[in-house]
Amino acid sequence: MARISKAACIGGGVIGGAWAARFVLAGIDTKIFDPHPEAQRLISEVMANAERAYKMLTRAPLPVKGTLNFSESLEEAVRGAEWIQESVPERLDLKRSVLAQIDIAADPKALIGSSTSGLIPTDLQRDMKHPERMFVAHPYNPVYLLPLVELVGGEKTARAVLEDAKAKLATVGMTGLIINKEIDAFVGDRLLEAFWREALWLIKDDICDTETLDNVIRYSFGLRWAQMGLFETYRIAGGEAGMRDFLSKYGPSLSWPWTKLTDVVDFDDALVEKIAVQSDAQSGQRGIRELERIRDQNLVGIMQALKAGDEGRGWGAGRLLSDYEAHLWKTAPKPQANPAKEPLKLLELRVPSAWIDYNGHMTEYRYTQCFADASDALLQMVGVDADYVKAGHSYYTVESHVRLLAEAKLGDALYVKAQLLPSDGKKIHSFMGLYRASDDTLLSTCEHLMLHVSSKESRSVPPLPAVMMKLKPLIEAHAVLPAPDAVGRSVGQRK
Amino acid sequence: MARISKAACIGGGVIGGAWAARFVLAGIDTKIFDPHPEAQRLISEVMANAERAYKMLTRAPLPVKGTLNFSESLEEAVRGAEWIQESVPERLDLKRSVLAQIDIAADPKALIGSSTSGLIPTDLQRDMKHPERMFVAHPYNPVYLLPLVELVGGEKTARAVLEDAKAKLATVGMTGLIINKEIDAFVGDRLLEAFWREALWLIKDDICDTETLDNVIRYSFGLRWAQMGLFETYRIAGGEAGMRDFLSKYGPSLSWPWTKLTDVVDFDDALVEKIAVQSDAQSGQRGIRELERIRDQNLVGIMQALKAGDEGRGWGAGRLLSDYEAHLWKTAPKPQANPAKEPLKLLELRVPSAWIDYNGHMTEYRYTQCFADASDALLQMVGVDADYVKAGHSYYTVESHVRLLAEAKLGDALYVKAQLLPSDGKKIHSFMGLYRASDDTLLSTCEHLMLHVSSKESRSVPPLPAVMMKLKPLIEAHAVLPAPDAVGRSVGQRK
Repeated sequence: MARISKAACIGGGVIGGAWAARFVLAGIDTKIFDPHPEAQRLISEVMANAERAYKMLTRAPLPVKGTLNFSESLEEAVRGAEWIQESVPERLDLKRSVLAQIDIAADPKALIGSSTSGLIPTDLQRDMKHPERMFVAHPYNPVYLLPLVELVGGEKTARAVLEDAKAKLATVGMTGLIINKEIDAFVGDRLLEAFWREALWLIKDDICDTETLDNVIRYSFGLRWAQMGLFETYRIAGGEAGMRDFLSKYGPSLSWPWTKLTDVVDFDDALVEKIAVQSDAQSGQRGIRELERIRDQNLVGIMQALKAGDEGRGWGAGRLLSDYEAHLWKTAPKPQANPAKEPLKLLELRVPSAWIDYNGHMTEYRYTQCFADASDALLQMVGVDADYVKAGHSYYTVESHVRLLAEAKLGDALYVKAQLLPSDGKKIHSFMGLYRASDDTLLSTCEHLMLHVSSKESRSVPPLPAVMMKLKPLIEAHAVLPAPDAVGRSVGQRK
Repeated sequence: MARISKAACIGGGVIGGAWAARFVLAGIDTKIFDPHPEAQRLISEVMANAERAYKMLTRAPLPVKGTLNFSESLEEAVRGAEWIQESVPERLDLKRSVLAQIDIAADPKALIGSSTSGLIPTDLQRDMKHPERMFVAHPYNPVYLLPLVELVGGEKTARAVLEDAKAKLATVGMTGLIINKEIDAFVGDRLLEAFWREALWLIKDDICDTETLDNVIRYSFGLRWAQMGLFETYRIAGGEAGMRDFLSKYGPSLSWPWTKLTDVVDFDDALVEKIAVQSDAQSGQRGIRELERIRDQNLVGIMQALKAGDEGRGWGAGRLLSDYEAHLWKTAPKPQANPAKEPLKLLELRVPSAWIDYNGHMTEYRYTQCFADASDALLQMVGVDADYVKAGHSYYTVESHVRLLAEAKLGDALYVKAQLLPSDGKKIHSFMGLYRASDDTLLSTCEHLMLHVSSKESRSVPPLPAVMMKLKPLIEAHAVLPAPDAVGRSVGQRK
């Protein structure tokens, strides 16, 4: 059984404190030892961040929180713990001595992970009596959210211990990746160190400032790397010709002056072959077109998530998307409120992957979203736009009755048609249908009621004349249409 | 006026073709010249990808698509174009000669951008008559989605041209970042080249394979870099002590053997000061705690977006989140169906930033989502879990009537209570209330009807006995409660 029931964190800074938050929120009783006078305050702040994030992260039932206690001594903290995580400052002598203390005080079967970002486990475990259960467990900040832990064993570490650590990490929502060989800085920090060194040259040489450099990252390959890494991304870039072809094209740049970091690998056939074989094993079960589709859906999802960032103002590439949308709205021809004697087509869309539930169907509340978006389109059409809302008036939805008649699936093209029912314009009462475009099947209906309000006075008032002038002819044109059967029905009412 | 009405793409591979898609979808008439026999097929595939992505990307009204035409000659393609984008293979002699041809055939005021990923514009523009309007416009794959364009001028490029290019790019949803000085590979590809060189060492030396290396990226700093770059991320890591302190701590590792790339910058006080000042200008208007909150919300949003990836199966860190949630559901104590004579508390949550609309209120369809999630919780409670659904039975929602009574705001703690109305269990008829936890204000009600179905037979059937055994006592216990006033009401019905 992989579950951890008791954990100890030795060192409670940004990293150690966030390990503690990870453990406690996974239901594990956790003890911290950190003699720093501010440790308790710092950890309570990390814990508050972690709890805020977890409330948004998942609807799954989080276990009852574990207890969190500060210990007076290292020995007391590690007593009875099954996982002990060392996160003291990055000095070999200090870490060695702390690990030796842990080793003596801990249960001989307890796992001991070090958060070191660069020191190798063979050096760290030198003075331990039970070094076989000691390993590097290198996490990334913020530890309570980012899933990666690099697991690196030293000469004396038992392989079974690494497998056990990997299984235990999964129960706290983390993924242990076992690194083949120990080297300084392992994998992640080696990549980061090379990147950091080049970045420092760019700043020093005034090629750009830190803000431009950060924007270069988050508007381009940062978005790619959130979902695919380096090799899978380049595999796609290579296109149909494949990874070997890509490598042969980009190999030559290794001899170009494209970085100041110049101890370059010998890019021989053996290396090309090794990478191509590994890439086939990694991604070869999917074709390039499929990888492209997955990549694009992920990029869209990430940009949309970032559009909601900074409390809805948009962040990074999401802010750019939001700006572009504002431009599109501004330059789009205003939809014409055509008072014809037929329902209005208000919305066309295609079902995106994020809208699909585990059954492969469009999720229940997305039907409501379609009707809400269609109502927004109607409001745009009669002149209730961003400026109108900013000036203090708007329509608020007060009720809606949605019937689900048939299922929408991933990629289905859908549209909404609306019939306005008799009302005074202070209310807008409508009956909408959501249709599948390929065969005009009616998938869902919505009877919908909105009320015009003054947002300053928080009460219902008539719309301004410019809106009424466009709205009234629409309502009057639709007055001649017969009311659909479902209008005025309550939930469960028989025909 | 920044708008482009006609564009030309010289070279239509992965990059040139995606530029064309970007232009056409922004409403720009576009001509392509590419003598490659497969050019038309390749571009039509890129265009299909781009259209699929744009349908999911935004609800904003996309302009009427521009026309896309293949030209017989370079001269014909560039005639009348206001923006000409060169994307031919990465050879200086070839690019120089193509740019010289473009220069002669184009309107002297037309902007000419090169997609080169590394050649400097001073070299490229050498043979041009009007070099002042030529610059590097380096995009990132996939060009139709990623917003970044590095704008780099050569010795003869007019500064006003770069500003004009930046303004024009905004109208196609891209962001031009003007790079101060021209160097080989500019900013993005220098960072990528350093990273790539280190990655090649790691593979060659068998430290890990390509899949592990990719996973290290996308489970850790890839997620960070999608939303903040290098310096802002490290600013947060530095915590309250600030950027100068962070730099002083991490400076020493520059002399450690953490990478094989070893031409290291001299990390003197002047460089520390320069970075600290630039970082203050970039991020100093927000405190560390605020940046942490923004970062965490973004990370949560990105992981949730990735959870919907690969058609709902989850991708990258989103797949890991999905696995963790499955673990949480499996290990959580089963909610008890307690047949007390009072409404059931089914859901507790906090309003996340992604649920907020431009008014600062919770968006209309999120109320429906709360009730849908509450119904799911009820189903879990009576034994309709993942295994039950997998075995071929489920409840489908058939209709719901939602009333919006008061607004929920960002961060509000909410809960849902449900009363089961008389029904036979083949139907579940409920009346739910969504409350604000701080003062128990009723924000919204939902009358909700579900039907038990056999998903194989696609028809309504009674639930299996194990479910009925738990459901019936609940319905019976609630039968003694008075029906809420709003039950059985239709939209707009007066009390």
